[in-house]
This record gives sequence, C-alpha cells and structure tokens, in this order.
Amino acid sequence: MMREPILLTPGPLTTSLTTKTAMLHDWGSWDTSFNQLTASVCHDLLAIVHGEASHVCVPLQGSGTFAVEAAIGNLVPRTGKLLVLVNGAYGKRMAQAAEVIGRQVCVLETADDTPPSPADVAGRLAADPAITHVGLIHCETSTGLLNPLTEIAEVVAQAGRQLIVDAMSSFGALPIDLRSLSIQAIIASSNKCLEGVPGMGFVIANRAALLASKGQSHSLAMDLCDQYEYMQRTGQWRYTPPTHVVAALRAALDQYLQAGGQAARLARYQHNADCLRNGLRKLGLRPFLPEAAQAPIILTFHAPAHPGYQFRPFYEAVRAQGFILYPGKLTQIETFRVGCIGAIDQAEIEQAVAAIGRILQQLGWINQETTA
Amino acid sequence: MMREPILLTPGPLTTSLTTKTAMLHDWGSWDTSFNQLTASVCHDLLAIVHGEASHVCVPLQGSGTFAVEAAIGNLVPRTGKLLVLVNGAYGKRMAQAAEVIGRQVCVLETADDTPPSPADVAGRLAADPAITHVGLIHCETSTGLLNPLTEIAEVVAQAGRQLIVDAMSSFGALPIDLRSLSIQAIIASSNKCLEGVPGMGFVIANRAALLASKGQSHSLAMDLCDQYEYMQRTGQWRYTPPTHVVAALRAALDQYLQAGGQAARLARYQHNADCLRNGLRKLGLRPFLPEAAQAPIILTFHAPAHPGYQFRPFYEAVRAQGFILYPGKLTQIETFRVGCIGAIDQAEIEQAVAAIGRILQQLGWINQETTA
Ligand SMILES: Cc1ncc(COP(=O)(O)O)c(C=O)c1O
Ligand SMILES: Cc1ncc(COP(=O)(O)O)c(C=O)c1O
Repeated sequence: MMREPILLTPGPLTTSLTTKTAMLHDWGSWDTSFNQLTASVCHDLLAIVHGEASHVCVPLQGSGTFAVEAAIGNLVPRTGKLLVLVNGAYGKRMAQAAEVIGRQVCVLETADDTPPSPADVAGRLAADPAITHVGLIHCETSTGLLNPLTEIAEVVAQAGRQLIVDAMSSFGALPIDLRSLSIQAIIASSNKCLEGVPGMGFVIANRAALLASKGQSHSLAMDLCDQYEYMQRTGQWRYTPPTHVVAALRAALDQYLQAGGQAARLARYQHNADCLRNGLRKLGLRPFLPEAAQAPIILTFHAPAHPGYQFRPFYEAVRAQGFILYPGKLTQIETFRVGCIGAIDQAEIEQAVAAIGRILQQLGWINQETTA
Repeated sequence: MMREPILLTPGPLTTSLTTKTAMLHDWGSWDTSFNQLTASVCHDLLAIVHGEASHVCVPLQGSGTFAVEAAIGNLVPRTGKLLVLVNGAYGKRMAQAAEVIGRQVCVLETADDTPPSPADVAGRLAADPAITHVGLIHCETSTGLLNPLTEIAEVVAQAGRQLIVDAMSSFGALPIDLRSLSIQAIIASSNKCLEGVPGMGFVIANRAALLASKGQSHSLAMDLCDQYEYMQRTGQWRYTPPTHVVAALRAALDQYLQAGGQAARLARYQHNADCLRNGLRKLGLRPFLPEAAQAPIILTFHAPAHPGYQFRPFYEAVRAQGFILYPGKLTQIETFRVGCIGAIDQAEIEQAVAAIGRILQQLGWINQETTA
C-alpha cells in the first residue's frame, strides 16, 4: 500500500490536509497572534454548545482523560460525591479518576448495550443525599452507545444536583444546547468530531461554578480555575500550549463552520454510519447495538462466527488495503469497531466495506454466498 | 514582514521544516507503526543521558509542567519530603506543584543570580532527616542560570537522598550522564533543546524506583508507573497520544543525531550565545548573569537604562523586523530575554542583534555612539 491509510477509529482520526498544513508554522506562545488564536478557538467551542451566556471554555494541555480528571478535581468539592452512570470503559475510567484523586464516588452500572433509566437515576439520587454530582458519558465510545443526555439532565436538575458530561466522542456532531439543558461541565478534545489533531482537551464549565471551585484542584497542572483566570488576565495559557495542535484545531473549526457546523457534521456522520451498517450487514456481520441505542460515531460489530477468527490478522490484512480498524473493547464478547468520524465520507466507507468483505472471504471467515 | 518570524524564545521555538512536515500524516494510536515510533523516541531520549542500564523513559501527554508534577507525585512517597533548591520561577513552580498535590515540601532559596552551594545543601540535608528527595532545576530558564548539577548530585547521594532534576531547558544540549551521576529522575519536554514541537513531556526515571512507586500517584492521568507498565505490555500510550507531536519529535531526533548529538547541539548553542552576548554588549546592553553562571540556552539582559523603556513597544518593533523576543521574568529588575535555542545559528543571531540595535536607536533608548 502506497497511499496513507484511512483511520476508521474514534480519534486520532483522518484529518484534512488543510488541518495538517496549519501546523507548518511555529507560534510564539507569548505572541498576540497566538493569544488571538486561542481566544477564537475557545469562543467557537463555546458557541457550538450555545454556552456563551452561562459557561466558559477552558482548554487544557494533554489528552481527553486529563480534561475529564481536571473537571472532576476542580468541580466536585473535596467533600462532594460523584455518581457515575457506567455502561462501558469510559464510564469506568471516570469513576476510577475520581477515586484516584480522592473524591467520593459511586456508580450506577448498566449492561454495555443498555442506557441508564432516568427513573433509576432519580431513585438513586433520592436515596443518597450525599451525591452532589452525576457523571455521564454522552457517547460511550467503547461500544458507540448513545446515552440519554436530555432525560438524565432533567432528573439530575430536578434532584438539585450537578451534571458533568464526558462528550469526548460526541462534541461537535451530536447536538448539545446549554440554553435548555442544565449541565455544569462538558468535556471534549481536539481530535474527535471536530477533526483536529490530538494534544488538547477542553472543559466547557459553568462560569460561576468554576470560579467557586478556586483552590479545590488536586493538581497544579490541571487547575482549571487558575488556567481560566490566568488566560482572562493575560490571553495566554498558564504553561506551554501545544501551539501546533491549537493551530490545527483553528483550521479544523474553520472547515467545520464552513461546511455548516454541527447539523452538517451530524448528517455526514449519520450517512457514514448508515452506509457502514448496511454494508457490513450485507457481509453477514451483526451490529452489537440496536439501532435506536447507536450514536453515529463508531459502530461495534460482532466478530464473524467462524472459530478461526482473530482480530490481529484481520486488522493487518485490512490495513494492507489502506484502512485502519479499531479493536473491540468488550471483555465478554468478541467484537471489532469501525469509526464513522474524521475527514471521510461515503466513498471511503464503501471502499472500506469492500476491503473488509474481500479480506474476510480470503481468510475464509465469511460465506461466499452472503456477500454475493 | 512577510516571512515567518524567528522565535528567540525558550520554546515553543523555531523548528526546522523537516520537523514540521513530519506532522503531515495521521497515525493510528493503536497501529504498530506508531508503537514503533514511540519506542524509538523513548529509546533515543534515554540514550542521550546514558540511562539504558538503570533508567526508563516514560513519555507523558501535556506540557513540561505536567511531567514535573507527575515525577513528584509518583516518586516522592506520600510520606516523603521534598527539598527544592530555588533560584527562579521554575524552582518555585516545582515547590508549588509538590504543595498542591499534598507532598511535604521545603525550599532552600538563593538569589536569582546565585547557584545553591553544595555545602549548604549538605547542611540542610543533615539538619532535616525527614527530607527524602531534592529537586533541582538544571538550567533555571527564568534567567538562564546554570545550576551545579554534578556537585549537588554528589552531596545528595552522600546524604543518601534522591535527586529529581528538572532539565526542561537543558536536556539534549547540556551533558548529563546517568552512568556517573546519581539521579532518580530527569524531566524534560519535546519543544526545547530537542527542537520538537510542544505537546509532550517525559520523565527519565530510575526503573526500580518507578516500579516501587506503584499506586502512589495523586492522579490517574499522570500515573507514570501505570503509563510505563501499560506501554511495556502493549506498546501503546495509556490515553490518546499527541501523535503528530511524537512524529515531529522523531524527525527532530533524527536531525539531532545526524548533526552530531549532544556535543554538536551544545557547540551550536554556545556559539549562538556568544554571538548574542557580544553583539548586544556592543549595543551597550548588559547581561544579567556573570558569564560563569550562564547556560547557553537563554540570556537575560538588563533593559536599556533609558527612563522611557517599555518591553511591549520594543517587542512589537523587533517583531515587525521578524524576531520574537521573550519578556524578563524577574520581579525586581527590568530585563528581557533572548533565546539561543531552536533551528537557528549565527546568521539569525546576527540579524536579530542588528534589528534590536536599529529599533533601540529609533526609539531613542540607546546612544548612537555605543552602536557605531
Ligand atoms: C467518551 C470518551 N471519554 C474519554 C476518552 C479519553 O480520551 P483520551 O484518549 O484523549 O484521553 C475517550 C477517548 O476515546 C472517549 O471516547
Ligand atoms: C526549567 C523549566 N521547567 C519547567 C518548565 C515548564 O514547562 P512547560 O511550560 O512546558 O509546562 C519550563 C518552561 O520553560 C522550564 O524552562
């Protein structure tokens, strides 16, 4: 294979050449031109979720997990308690982060294919008055499950608690409207549906709550309140920013807005997901999730039923055709994942489906008939 | 000004076009080719300080400060105590990080232009048996001061304590040899003397000490032992790596090795520093540090004595000539800084000196005669 492989992964993913070429420049982190870049990125990120009136965008160096940990470490008081709604690996990780940094934490766990029921959440909140915050994973990337953000936000608000949403793999594609939803903080990163390169996360936090959290952080580098106040005062990041990553995100946001913003991004991804689902179904591959529970971000498929199936040789053979798949993240069932996000559309999805079909036939892991 | 400005800053700095073009590619974070990239980068970073027999290199997402905090949070036990040798902003920051994350900390402070005396350090260690670790800033970037690493390492070892070295702005240029020096951990980042782009730090840690620190981290995202063990097991970073930043660092390391490694890098920077010092001296500008205490990384100069001097207009005018300077970081004295590092040599330094001379004359802040 001579050309670049296409990443069918939940990020880092395939970015446009325009986004990558934005990195062919060195920025001074103290320079006004870079401060303006940061400010414009934060402005646009906040606008995507309509948070201008109530929230602020605080960027943070590092991967998305750093931003999740920072949000909890800053916003959940040392005397607070976090209830995490778990139905996959990222929910587990949020709970683990809270535990490691010494916040009280409990979980309400449902199966990998099952969203939490708002009534159960309400019941749990009523039963445990110590809970101050609820953590929800908007799209649980470990399967692609869409969790019911609106319904959960309502029961959490009714119970007078605060909601923290890990929207890592949904931000920018799935609609979130802070004017109508009560959410204390939304966490995401540069390299998923915004189609930037990896290296920064951000927290869209309620301004009053963020300022009230001053001095609460478990970490100096992850102190979001300090990062925000310093940036307000100086226009600069507190510590060296990933300048090239920020510039790439600016370019990616320009393309995002030009293409029509969130609605257009969702439409493209939904179309990618539909093509993928239909294409692989024709090969006899079964989606793990029911269609109603599925976000158009990443799809999980059951591995072919053939006893010889192994992910590694399948991955390598499909890679040699120019497509990078993603392993499953379920422990009990053999699955693999295919991302629908990144600078790709129907053409790449159809090519990928065709390549997967050829390979699985060559390996003898699907029937010739199914694919006819 | 049409061309790109040259960054005379301590990082982010001017990188080569080869380094930047290494980012024109998207890497799958699960892919073998990226795992190999990570492994080769860690291998080469470890070799620069001759740590192969005793130490390991653990990369970490985020800026250098994240890596400093991670090193302390992992290696200084919760019951330990850190003595930080402070003579500038980065020493203060290390102490602050230790305090925020709840480690016992004390400081031995000297003036901004004064290295700590090894005898004083020995005395302090003898007087306070609770101290388990000593933190030293190799090159204190807030002035450019070189701290006496070898001598301090000796007294710390003699006292049976552990040394943690923030070598952010010296790593790769100033010699450090782990075969002869007793150092538990060295911290640095991608974007200083290695001339990569910003977005990752790394900790070169004694392997046995790192493994013994298991479970000690104050943070999930910054857990170095977990990052190391996971990487050993899978070849992958625990959380999404800054793929493009890692690729740029690989390219930067290739150029570093090809040009002759640490000795060659030091020689180029030393020559840059000498040209800069002599050139600005001829303009009547006085270096803040005595030559013996100065590392060839970044130089601090007293501002021109003229009462009208202000950094901002000076900066903007020099910037319009294509050179980005750096503000001073001293609170008592008016200074500015000029970096000697990055993909620059004598030509850029001479051009910058000439531009600074022209601007200061135009602004009337230096005498015509001095510059004749
Ligand atoms: C929902 C969700 N949360 C958190 C993360 C962690 O982000 P990162 O790998 O950038 O640390 C991911 C990454 O895929 C994710 O999908
Ligand atoms: C000696 C030293 N330590 C720590 C840092 C902090 O690194 P960063 O800004 O990447 O967080 C710097 C940055 O200039 C430094 O020079």
